[in-house]
Amino acid sequence: MPTFSLDDGFHDASRTVPGKRMTPPEVDRPLLAYETALGICLSAVDRCVPEETVDIAKSLGRVLRQDVTSGIAVPPFDKSAMDGYAVKQDDVKSASEKKPVVLKVVDEIPAGTVSDVVLRSGEAARIMTGAPLPVGADAVIRLEKTESAQAGLVQVYGKVDENNYVIYKGQDLLPGTRVASAGTIVEPALMGIMANCGVCDVKVSCPPSVGIISTGSELVPPGTRLQGGQIYDVNSYLLYGLCAMAGCDVSILGRVVDKSCDLLSLLNSHSDVDLLLLSGGMSVGDYDIVHETLKRAGVEEIFWRVRIKPGKPLFFGRRGSALVFGLPGNPVSSATNFYLFVLPVIDKLLGKSSWGLETGYAVLGNSMLFRPGRRKFLRAKLRRDGASHVAWVLNEQRSGVLSPMVDADILVEVPEDARMVKDGDVVKVYYL
Amino acid sequence: MPTFSLDDGFHDASRTVPGKRMTPPEVDRPLLAYETALGICLSAVDRCVPEETVDIAKSLGRVLRQDVTSGIAVPPFDKSAMDGYAVKQDDVKSASEKKPVVLKVVDEIPAGTVSDVVLRSGEAARIMTGAPLPVGADAVIRLEKTESAQAGLVQVYGKVDENNYVIYKGQDLLPGTRVASAGTIVEPALMGIMANCGVCDVKVSCPPSVGIISTGSELVPPGTRLQGGQIYDVNSYLLYGLCAMAGCDVSILGRVVDKSCDLLSLLNSHSDVDLLLLSGGMSVGDYDIVHETLKRAGVEEIFWRVRIKPGKPLFFGRRGSALVFGLPGNPVSSATNFYLFVLPVIDKLLGKSSWGLETGYAVLGNSMLFRPGRRKFLRAKLRRDGASHVAWVLNEQRSGVLSPMVDADILVEVPEDARMVKDGDVVKVYYL
Repeated sequence: MPTFSLDDGFHDASRTVPGKRMTPPEVDRPLLAYETALGICLSAVDRCVPEETVDIAKSLGRVLRQDVTSGIAVPPFDKSAMDGYAVKQDDVKSASEKKPVVLKVVDEIPAGTVSDVVLRSGEAARIMTGAPLPVGADAVIRLEKTESAQAGLVQVYGKVDENNYVIYKGQDLLPGTRVASAGTIVEPALMGIMANCGVCDVKVSCPPSVGIISTGSELVPPGTRLQGGQIYDVNSYLLYGLCAMAGCDVSILGRVVDKSCDLLSLLNSHSDVDLLLLSGGMSVGDYDIVHETLKRAGVEEIFWRVRIKPGKPLFFGRRGSALVFGLPGNPVSSATNFYLFVLPVIDKLLGKSSWGLETGYAVLGNSMLFRPGRRKFLRAKLRRDGASHVAWVLNEQRSGVLSPMVDADILVEVPEDARMVKDGDVVKVYYL
Repeated sequence: MPTFSLDDGFHDASRTVPGKRMTPPEVDRPLLAYETALGICLSAVDRCVPEETVDIAKSLGRVLRQDVTSGIAVPPFDKSAMDGYAVKQDDVKSASEKKPVVLKVVDEIPAGTVSDVVLRSGEAARIMTGAPLPVGADAVIRLEKTESAQAGLVQVYGKVDENNYVIYKGQDLLPGTRVASAGTIVEPALMGIMANCGVCDVKVSCPPSVGIISTGSELVPPGTRLQGGQIYDVNSYLLYGLCAMAGCDVSILGRVVDKSCDLLSLLNSHSDVDLLLLSGGMSVGDYDIVHETLKRAGVEEIFWRVRIKPGKPLFFGRRGSALVFGLPGNPVSSATNFYLFVLPVIDKLLGKSSWGLETGYAVLGNSMLFRPGRRKFLRAKLRRDGASHVAWVLNEQRSGVLSPMVDADILVEVPEDARMVKDGDVVKVYYL
């Protein structure tokens, strides 16, 4: 069985000898468990974003803030599902190709009009798809099973089978039927269904406002020329994309070097956002500087560091009505924290009925060894093998290496205490 | 084995007795096979929409019209993956918790700066995450495995294990590596990766312009009060949502009654769209009127009617540079035709590398009987049962009934000649 080790040095706390100079006392605090940290993040969301009313044509992808109920029966009348002739079933029960039944044609009913005839035995009405059945008719014979050789008469070549081509009033929706609940994301089919009920506008959530700040003296924006020791700012763009996809109104507020004054003035000039995403400066060596700045800027710390990998040095706090995430500078860790913690918070702010990535199960395609301790979230590719889904964990899991991230379409969860997972194991997966 | 019949009267052509008055001669033409019709639609797309250059922050969901290649090595230098001390591996190979190795600290290297020291045996440099390794160093010892009890010296408590915490220059990307190909849809991870390469803007497709027209005297817009025989216009909103989701710039051009002059003037005043979607008026009884109007408006017919269910009366044509789809008035049929024919055309116009819905396989959860003849596309729900995916075909398949459509997340394909499918069968599915 081929295995590869994904361990890049998770350390058992008992073996740690902290450096005296650079390590703040907080490092000794126990790390939070994943579920505990997520629970704290969600509890901190004590409101939804405001709502607005939009035309249903503009509601795609928005989150409903109201139940949508049909005020009418759909269809609003007994409707012909076919072009043909409205008849009484009893009149044609003996009809066959050899022995057609002849009926008198008493009306012609286009869609959009109501016939004023009352159909009697021996009579038929020419009817178009979507037109209301005349009173007295209980079935429609398809045009292809008829022949109108003589003016005013029609020959019917078949009886009514299990399908009478009538869609009854209210058969699709009864008046008062709820077609969607608050918290639902509007999809094209729902747009059609809302129109079907006569609903022309709906209340939806306004997009949460998110401000993104990258910290790090080494960061420069793409498009500039790198000097020694510099790298491009990845997180601003990665987080912009992730937040925009989650339905937010995103602003890249800026890049700040690790000096507290820059960060402080940025925080002060953007105090009205719903969510503030900082990245960088959250690891052990940097923590004291950024932590001190956040404190002085009025950011109340709620927690720091979670027992997961990648993404351990997550900071979560609050500043007025804004929730503040301090994400690791490493883009892979940053994205993992986004999916695990920030996305559920955005979803709850939006008033969605479920929060965070959809989860499921897959069969593992490869085997791996681990050092136990933290919950792992491994980037993987889901391949369909017939009807079953196989998760292939990507070879490159080091959080410093970003490029394999485009190949990943799931995260595979590995429990804290696992030392090994084997091909064939069923694992929990998070769909990206 | 419980089965239910989904047949609502597909008729064998040999048994058809066409009505003499209402049926145009075209009805006798053989129906096109699904693949033939799709092939014709795709062949008619002889160009892509124009391209534009956008900032990478604005590129989410857009289709690339260029390959994206890294102009630099990523990372651009040998980079420390941890806070700690840059060392020579040979110096610390005997280090342990009981017998630490003492090294002289010759520099401190924050991220964003380049050290000018050349590390010699017995020396270490304090280094921060993301900073370039000094010349002469070949590993980083994590801060937690060190202690700096005495100024200018560091005690190292562990040797370098399989992970030396160095990310080498070009280890993520070598200069010239292609990170994305033309035709790719930009996702958040790719936004980050493009930034990582220093790319600040990219060429993407402009959104295809789509005009939507509903035909039918019975249609009124939602928000108005229904009169006898009237129903709400569903297709304008359903198709708006489907096209917007596919990346188009959509306009609802209007609703026209079945009179040719209205349709003609609408077509004439919107001749600049890439795609024109008409719905309604495509079935046998209506066909002659709309067909005649389209002809007079300069729409060249390419085909009419496909051997599928639902959605048989599909019209495809061309008017100048605009491709014209005539979709059935029935919303379910209209949406099915959208997914099977219109979406691939939009994808090809956008320059995407793959066209149409993603397909796969699933195990069927229920059994059904059919009359053979047309390829069926059944609305179904995919349920995950452990690692395997089970397709449950919805009970309600009549194309006149719209509301179950929100429950469907796949279409299950049933071959033309199938008389039955059974639970446990592996079937082809289209992911909605």
